[in-house]
Amino acid sequence: MSNFADLPSMLAFHACYVSFQQLQAIHTYFGSLENALNSSPSDWQNRELLSAKQVNDLLSDECKIRVDEALEWAEKDNQAWLPIGSTSFPQPLKEITDPPILLGVRGNVELLSDPQVAIVGSRHASKQGMETAKDFARFLSQQGLGITSGLALGIDTAAHQGGLQGMGKTVAVVATGLDRIYPASNQGLGHQIVEEGVMISEFVLGTKPLNYNFPKRNRIISGLSLGTLVVEAALKSGSLITARTALEQGREVFAVPGSIHNPQAKGCHQLIKQGAKLVESGQDVLEELSANLQYRLDLQTTQELPGLVTQPNNQSKSALLNSIGYEPTSLDELVVLTKQPVSSLQGELMLLELAGEIEAMSAARWRRIK
Amino acid sequence: MSNFADLPSMLAFHACYVSFQQLQAIHTYFGSLENALNSSPSDWQNRELLSAKQVNDLLSDECKIRVDEALEWAEKDNQAWLPIGSTSFPQPLKEITDPPILLGVRGNVELLSDPQVAIVGSRHASKQGMETAKDFARFLSQQGLGITSGLALGIDTAAHQGGLQGMGKTVAVVATGLDRIYPASNQGLGHQIVEEGVMISEFVLGTKPLNYNFPKRNRIISGLSLGTLVVEAALKSGSLITARTALEQGREVFAVPGSIHNPQAKGCHQLIKQGAKLVESGQDVLEELSANLQYRLDLQTTQELPGLVTQPNNQSKSALLNSIGYEPTSLDELVVLTKQPVSSLQGELMLLELAGEIEAMSAARWRRIK
Repeated sequence: MSNFADLPSMLAFHACYVSFQQLQAIHTYFGSLENALNSSPSDWQNRELLSAKQVNDLLSDECKIRVDEALEWAEKDNQAWLPIGSTSFPQPLKEITDPPILLGVRGNVELLSDPQVAIVGSRHASKQGMETAKDFARFLSQQGLGITSGLALGIDTAAHQGGLQGMGKTVAVVATGLDRIYPASNQGLGHQIVEEGVMISEFVLGTKPLNYNFPKRNRIISGLSLGTLVVEAALKSGSLITARTALEQGREVFAVPGSIHNPQAKGCHQLIKQGAKLVESGQDVLEELSANLQYRLDLQTTQELPGLVTQPNNQSKSALLNSIGYEPTSLDELVVLTKQPVSSLQGELMLLELAGEIEAMSAARWRRIK
Repeated sequence: MSNFADLPSMLAFHACYVSFQQLQAIHTYFGSLENALNSSPSDWQNRELLSAKQVNDLLSDECKIRVDEALEWAEKDNQAWLPIGSTSFPQPLKEITDPPILLGVRGNVELLSDPQVAIVGSRHASKQGMETAKDFARFLSQQGLGITSGLALGIDTAAHQGGLQGMGKTVAVVATGLDRIYPASNQGLGHQIVEEGVMISEFVLGTKPLNYNFPKRNRIISGLSLGTLVVEAALKSGSLITARTALEQGREVFAVPGSIHNPQAKGCHQLIKQGAKLVESGQDVLEELSANLQYRLDLQTTQELPGLVTQPNNQSKSALLNSIGYEPTSLDELVVLTKQPVSSLQGELMLLELAGEIEAMSAARWRRIK
């Protein structure tokens, strides 16, 4: 996929709404993206690689202007484009069948590599539902998980707010271009997420909020995440789409139950009837995710520390455990002591906590309890 | 099991707390219950069929007096003993591993043969929980299912009340002798159940409410029922025992979800996590039970109408459907038209309703809708 890392080429295809499937076919046919972009219109004819309009757009001067504009946008602080071939492109999102070919990023791009949980739900949530979403998000973020959601009103808003209060922070996946924040009433929250968390979009700059883009966006929310938690949802809620895509992507789905007389609980109950896991606390979510998290950590260790491939994962875990004292030890100290990246440490700390070996303290510190 | 139908013999063993397993061993050893009762103490020695105290009690004059008292009790209207070998002893209860050898009955013994659903839950239920229990019970009873519960305060009380409002009525399984009603505050409800429904107990007359008898009683509540529905239950609730015995007996377990902030919902949520079906309405319960109900009906048809054994069940169902008009038809009319017993009709009516062929009306009437 390394050829899919060339930013100017990828921005050109992105500007013409080329899908991942189309891009793969183009790459196979032309041998490289550069070849494709340097081909004449006649080379594209009758190939069914792209629509006639897409070919026209791709080879136009207008496309080159848009690529330049996009490159200029990414020169600003905290703004970047992540093509799918980039090593920083989040691994779980690479694994879905229809990944975005490029993500726009505003904020801390490193957060995208951390293990994440999506928390979604109704825009018309109850006060209680908002508090529940915030509690789950705060707890899971305090354990080092990023909280991924869609910046909508209601549950999404509460999830981001809770996520910002913990170490894992929050990832907002939006359905507009990154040069605008929607809805307007979430301007403040959006800016805070750009400052402290990260906001991403697969849509080109200037994209307005369009109904048909929201379900597309939902596959990214679930695709980034180990699991999707639905807090409150009516029967026709868009969050049920996110839950369905999570299942299709082989990810976990969690739902918070509620009174059978609360219409905003009916979507959650439907999910549980269909096999989603009923959860009552962040701890429930964490326990269900632990196996999956171990798998991701093994993957990450293999990728980031090739020298350790044949070493059992237990060894790095006990190295970490040895670095944690009975007095609180901070994340910064652990990075120095273990020489491991934060994203790998966070997952291992979670597993040690689940195993009852250590206890999470305030301010991203841990201590041994055995 | 026909030998287990002889009432005076069975009452003697019942008076001495002989279990079903013990009774089977005794029957195997002595060839008949009568032989056993006519044997001398030396015949029982070193056989480990019963404890020394049980043998002593069984062969005492005191035992004969207790049998006579029990027989006298059953001479009163609406009072009876059902030994396990009786054809009226409810079939589902015969199938559990440790059935009672004898049931005392006050009220309408025929209700025991109808398909039943247990509805149980907390004694400290919320007002909303009580209403939910009553709603489920009323709906399921209107569909012809008997509502089985334990006459306790809280959810049990609401379940019985709802059951009495429908055609299926209610079955109270109590943990005392049938000559007393416990708790005292349910005297009125108890008497109403004896008048309109049925109250049963496996315990000898005079048995006071004893802590260790309540869990024993719970196996009968679940054992009589196709499934057990838990409406509200805290984590240490006795209704979780009933749910567990239901699972052990291969019956369905249903639970009503609630807010994660309601301690009385935690037991239900635990059950759902362990595999119980989340239900939001009586209709949900009915749909889950329909396969099981079909099995019971097939069994009943085989037993009650031997001539029909080789006839497909579809035929009797379409005979029933033909008897139902587009104008409401009453249960009494259907009994006359189909020459089938009420207990078999009720189940078939339910299946026709689930299949969308007929619609239940008020006052135990149905009409075709196709």
